[in-house]
This record gives sequence, structure tokens and C-alpha cells, in this order.
Amino acid sequence: MEQKSWAKAARQASYALAALTAEERNAALRGIQKALRGHAAEIYAQNELDMAQAQAEQLAGPLLKRLKFDEKKMADVLSGLDSLLRLPDPLGRVTLARELTPGLNLYRVSCPIGVIGVIFESRPDALAQIASLCLKSGNAALLKGGREALRTNRALMAALLEGAAGILPEGWAALLETRDDVNDMLTQDQSIDLIIPRGSNAFVRYIMEHTTIPVMGHAEGLCHTYVDRDADVDMAVKITVDAKTQALAVCNATETLLVHRDIAAAFLPGCARALREKGVEVRGDAEVRAIIDCRAADDQDWDTEYLDAILSIKLVDSLEEAISFINRHGSHHTDAIITNDPAAQRRFLTGVDSAGVYVNCSTRFADGFRYGFGAEVGIATGKLHARGPVGLDGLCTYKYHLIGSGQTVEDTVNGTLKYTHRDL
Amino acid sequence: MEQKSWAKAARQASYALAALTAEERNAALRGIQKALRGHAAEIYAQNELDMAQAQAEQLAGPLLKRLKFDEKKMADVLSGLDSLLRLPDPLGRVTLARELTPGLNLYRVSCPIGVIGVIFESRPDALAQIASLCLKSGNAALLKGGREALRTNRALMAALLEGAAGILPEGWAALLETRDDVNDMLTQDQSIDLIIPRGSNAFVRYIMEHTTIPVMGHAEGLCHTYVDRDADVDMAVKITVDAKTQALAVCNATETLLVHRDIAAAFLPGCARALREKGVEVRGDAEVRAIIDCRAADDQDWDTEYLDAILSIKLVDSLEEAISFINRHGSHHTDAIITNDPAAQRRFLTGVDSAGVYVNCSTRFADGFRYGFGAEVGIATGKLHARGPVGLDGLCTYKYHLIGSGQTVEDTVNGTLKYTHRDL
Repeated sequence: MEQKSWAKAARQASYALAALTAEERNAALRGIQKALRGHAAEIYAQNELDMAQAQAEQLAGPLLKRLKFDEKKMADVLSGLDSLLRLPDPLGRVTLARELTPGLNLYRVSCPIGVIGVIFESRPDALAQIASLCLKSGNAALLKGGREALRTNRALMAALLEGAAGILPEGWAALLETRDDVNDMLTQDQSIDLIIPRGSNAFVRYIMEHTTIPVMGHAEGLCHTYVDRDADVDMAVKITVDAKTQALAVCNATETLLVHRDIAAAFLPGCARALREKGVEVRGDAEVRAIIDCRAADDQDWDTEYLDAILSIKLVDSLEEAISFINRHGSHHTDAIITNDPAAQRRFLTGVDSAGVYVNCSTRFADGFRYGFGAEVGIATGKLHARGPVGLDGLCTYKYHLIGSGQTVEDTVNGTLKYTHRDL
Repeated sequence: MEQKSWAKAARQASYALAALTAEERNAALRGIQKALRGHAAEIYAQNELDMAQAQAEQLAGPLLKRLKFDEKKMADVLSGLDSLLRLPDPLGRVTLARELTPGLNLYRVSCPIGVIGVIFESRPDALAQIASLCLKSGNAALLKGGREALRTNRALMAALLEGAAGILPEGWAALLETRDDVNDMLTQDQSIDLIIPRGSNAFVRYIMEHTTIPVMGHAEGLCHTYVDRDADVDMAVKITVDAKTQALAVCNATETLLVHRDIAAAFLPGCARALREKGVEVRGDAEVRAIIDCRAADDQDWDTEYLDAILSIKLVDSLEEAISFINRHGSHHTDAIITNDPAAQRRFLTGVDSAGVYVNCSTRFADGFRYGFGAEVGIATGKLHARGPVGLDGLCTYKYHLIGSGQTVEDTVNGTLKYTHRDL
């Protein structure tokens, strides 16, 4: 494939970025803070143009809310940069040190991945957050935001580039603007090391089907909470309400509630009441409807991420049935068990094949900030490289340094040298 | 896509495998050793049939040598199983432990990836090695070997299944036999978590282009050795000879030698002599040929993995030129610098974008056994998940366990709970 100029520039920049010190990368982050402050009025003005067009095009309310970039969003971005500045350097960490044979030492050392392409939704604050995460981890970033946010994104990117000018190599970040750019991105496997698409399952799948570049998908979350026979009923109600209603249009909200048959009569009526007080529509299978009055759930419900005030409920006969239901219908994002039985906790933790497996707490905790990662580029729903909330660590890879003084493999074959494999 | 029965069985088995203890997995490895010993004669007999057919089809000598499965290969397989038995359990390791808020603790715990599909070349010993690595790491394995080795592979797989029967779930390993099976494998993204193809660049690329399943490619190695101006000449000759000749048809052999202009006259004549004594054909650029007599290298040479007794040599003006040549023409596998200058060593380690970056030693060390990993499933040439020699660690992923006592996100928002993010 023809190498695009922005891809080539990012590849070149990635080599220069990898050689910068933590102090230089932090200086660039501070420069970016300053430039964002200096150009704030301009950025808000561009955002107002985006907002006006979005309103004229009658975008839905939640989308408009995410598109808005005002003083509050700016403050969030600046404080995000503050916490990023405080985080330790993710590069150069030695995760293995071993003498292979006397005088020949192996080190596994964290380093940047290289060039990362990120395709994200309409929130313009995501641009600043993702670009700064890539910068802190020494990666070049190719960023494609939502069409609705184009003017805001351009203004933000201009501030980012100005703030880092003279410290970072040219090409360290670039804004891609069109769908054609995205399709070109998918072909640039010589220049791009990783693509991170954030969006629907269908969107992530489209990206995977059209590129040979590794993809770290950030797709849907179909999370479960399972109330075991030995659950504390009050705790189960409290957690269920939080997991469903603390926020609605989020990937870590619980969409399906599984309830052990033995606790259903004690748990369901109070839970349904508490959910209805929060405006949640409850759907249940036939057995649930024998206990509480609710709409019937059909087979589709078990595979639906509502992202809305709807919860489907199903009874199960056993912990094993709950585990296999979750593995079959879930999205391997985050699933919780409520139980006081330690054996059931252990079995659930081992048996559920999800990035987050929780005991006696709300699925809503699945989040990079809440995990203490400082920020996240998204929540990975695949199993390889990084799983769950992806912070700086997930944007790094490693290389092996082998430091010797003339050693050859022939010397180990003829017995001059012997392997010691001694950890240093 | 229609779910194939072997893929479905592997998925089911993967859940049962993840729940086994290290003792149970080791017992299965011992059962496999016993069964291999018990069925040795049968395996050799099937291998003789494969060998006879391969000879009739006039397969090349090196291929025949790799196809052979005799007492020596069996001893290697059995001793490989011994070292695998001695390695610590890769599962259940806690790599992060953090209190999020009092009573709510986060743990990152290593766990199996799930179902791994491996497509490997004609060596039948690879089947036993890969299957046992997958087993030790709790993964189900779908294995497709070379067509030439089919009878041997069937006999080996029968012994493996017999040896592990009663301990491992059915479907923990399966042999795929046809090219159609491989094409089916590529569509089973609901059942297979990772595909590991071992072979040529073209083959690995074909696999990547035809699946949405993550691919950990084990492709070619175009390795460099760079002799810096401050190299010890004798050491440089010794390492170059080892890196080129210690074995020829291997991915970690050096294919291109870069030499700093300032040391060329002192280094090249002796090096060329030593290489020729080992039967190596030397090819050089015009400047090299002004110093030693050799065949001319053309542009193609810099991009060729010879896998043969051929070495191309190029002069460079600087360390920076060497680094950027390696990043442009190499395969990001393993590259070495020979120098006594600490600043040049550091710059090379940072600047070269390869899985292995070596100082003053032979590129031939890039190998799972030599690194002390016990065994390897291959050498990954991508950058994500696992890089370089892939042992047990590379066959694991992790999940987050979050263990609470009724905590909700709402409590952290309303101030009842405060994040502590205290490492445990």
C-alpha cells in the first residue's frame, strides 16, 4: 500500500519520541496545558459552531451533552493533565533481569508501542486525553474524532501542537478528518502498530475485518450481576440499583440480573421496588414474573446492551448455570457475584471469562480512573495485550536488552560457557 | 459463521481447563510422558511411513531432517516435558494489588487466554511441545501441522489424548488435518481467542488478512549486526561469525552486517577471511568492495532473509545511519551492536525498534530456551501482547478481581467513600 505522508511522519516521529526522557515528555505536557489555557476562548468559540450545527441537525440530547466543550470540560482536561504529570514514567521499567551465562545479562524493558491510531466518538475532550496518554507513553498518535466535533477538534489539536512545539518531533500527533482517512489508516500497516477503535460492536468488527494491523477494540459492555443463594439481600439490592442506575449509557452498567432460585422470593420484590423508584423498566422470564409483576423478557433481551433504564432478570438453578450463561451471553467486560459464600466467590472468579470479575460490588467500578490508572484510553474487550481499563501500561510494549562481552552461542554448545539463568 | 464442533469443544474445554489446579495440569503432563513412552514404537513406525512418502516426493534434505521423529527427538520431547513440569505455575499470579477504597480491593491475576490455534511447520516434535505449553498455561489447543507429518502427528496426538484422559476435559487439544480446517479456523472468532501462525512472512500475512481473530505472527527474522567505530575488532569477528554461521536456516541468524566507515579497513579483511573459512559467501556495497574482494550486493540484498551461508555487508557513516537502516530494512526481530562506547550502546538500545536489541553478543541468543523460558511456542515478530521468544507468560492474559463488601459507585460520588488507591 502507498504510504500516506501523515503515517510516514508519525512513524518517523515515533522513533524520536522513544528517545526522549521522561522530563522532556512531561515538559511537553506542561506546554500543552499552557497552550490550552491560552487558546481556551478560541476553542469554546469553535465548539459553539459545532454545537449550533449539531442542534440544527437535531442531534439527540445525550450526544449534544458529550459534544459540549466548555469551562468545565476544559478544567477536567487540565486536571487530567495534572494527574498524568504526577504518574511515574511507564517507559524503561525493567520487568525481568536475568544472567544467562556469566557476563551476559538479559533485561526486559518497557518501551513505547510506536504509532497508535485511535478512532473515537464525538467527545472532544477525548482528543486531549488520548493524545496526552500517547505522549506520556512515548507513542505517536493518529486521531480521528467524530464528524460533529471537527471544529473543536481542530482547535484543540492546534493548541496541542503549539504547546509541544520545540520539544516533541513534528508528526507526534495528527488529526484525521474524513472517513477516507480512516480507510487509509487501515492500510498503513508499515507505519501504524495498533488501532484502538471506540464504538459499537459492529464498528469495532468492521475495523477488525478491514485491517491487518492489531486492533484493541473498545466495544460494548453487556455486564451481569448475579445474586447467589447466599447473598445479603440488602447489599444485593443496593448493588443492583447502583450497577443499573448510577449511569445509564455506559459500558459498565449491568444489563442483565441473574438470581438464584432459592433467594428469588426474598430478593426480587424489594429489588424491583427500588429499581422502579429509579425509573427502571424491569423485564423478567416466566419464573420472575411469577414473583413480581413485570414485562416479559424474550430471548433477544439476554443479548441486548440497553444503555438505558431497562433491566432484564432471569432465574437460575445454580452458580454453574449463572457462570455459563454469563460466558455465553456476556461481552467479557465486567460481571459481579453477590454472595457471602467463599467457595462460590472463588468459583465465580475462576469460571467467568471476563476482564473484570467482581465480588460484592457494583460493575460500575470498571474504569481507569477508579482503578487508579490516572486515565484510560478505553476499556479493552479483547483478551490480548491489555484487558479491561487501558491506561499507560496498555500503551507500552517491551523489548529485550541482552548485554554481553563477546559471548557466542557456539561457546555454549562447545561447553566453554554454561547457562546459569540466574535472576538478578 | 457456523460454529465448528471442534471449535465449540475447545471453547467448552477451555472453561474447564481454567478451573484445574497446577497439580492437575502437571499430572496430565506426566500422563502424557508415560503415554509417549508407551506408544513410542508406534509413533516411530508412523513417522517412517511419512518419511518414505516424503522421500518418494523428493522433499529437500533439511525438510526431511525436520520431519524425522526418532529416539533422539522423543528424548528431547520427554526432557522438554520434564523442564515444563519444573516451571512454576504461570496462572494465578497477582501482578497488581490495590485498595481502591477501604474494603474494596483490586487484584490483577494471570489466567489462560482460552483457546489457541497454532499452525506450524513440518516438525512433528513441535506438536508435543506446543500442546504441552498450552496445557501448562491452561489453554485449549487447536493444532494444524505440516501435511508431510500427518501420520506422525496423528500418532502423537493419540498418545497425548490417552495420556491426559481422565484428568483433562475432552476437547483440550485437537489435531486439524486439512487446509479447509485452517480456513474454518480463521472464521471461528466466537471460539478461538488467538491464532499463532509459524512460517514465512507471506503466510503470516495471509492469516492476518483472512481473520478477525488476534494473530501473534512468528515470521521471518532479518537480523543485523552493526560493528561500531569503537568495536573490539577480534570480538566483532568472533560474534559476526557466530551470528552468521552457528546455524544457517534460523530466524535469529544475522543476514546483514553494517560496519562503521572508520573501522572498516581494520575489521573487514579479517572478518571476510573468517567467514570464508566457514564457507560463507560475502556480498558488499561498492565501498566494502574497495576494501575486500567480494560479490556486489544490490538493493534486494538489504531486504533478503537468506537462511543460507550468505552475508551482505554495508558501510555506514554513523550510528544514526545504522539505526535508521535497521529500522527500515529489518524485521524487528533481533539486532546487535558491537561497541565499547557506552553512549553508543545506550543510543542503539533505545533507537532500534526490535524485540531483541543486543550489545556485544550474537543474535543467535534470541531463543526461549536460551532466555530460560523453558520452551517457546515461537518468536513473535509483532509488538503487541508478547514480543520475542514466547514462553508460558505469552500464553497467559489477566483478569481483574475486585473484591468488596457492598461498595457502590454512588457512595464514592456522594462522598461516603473516598478513593485511597493504596497498593497492597
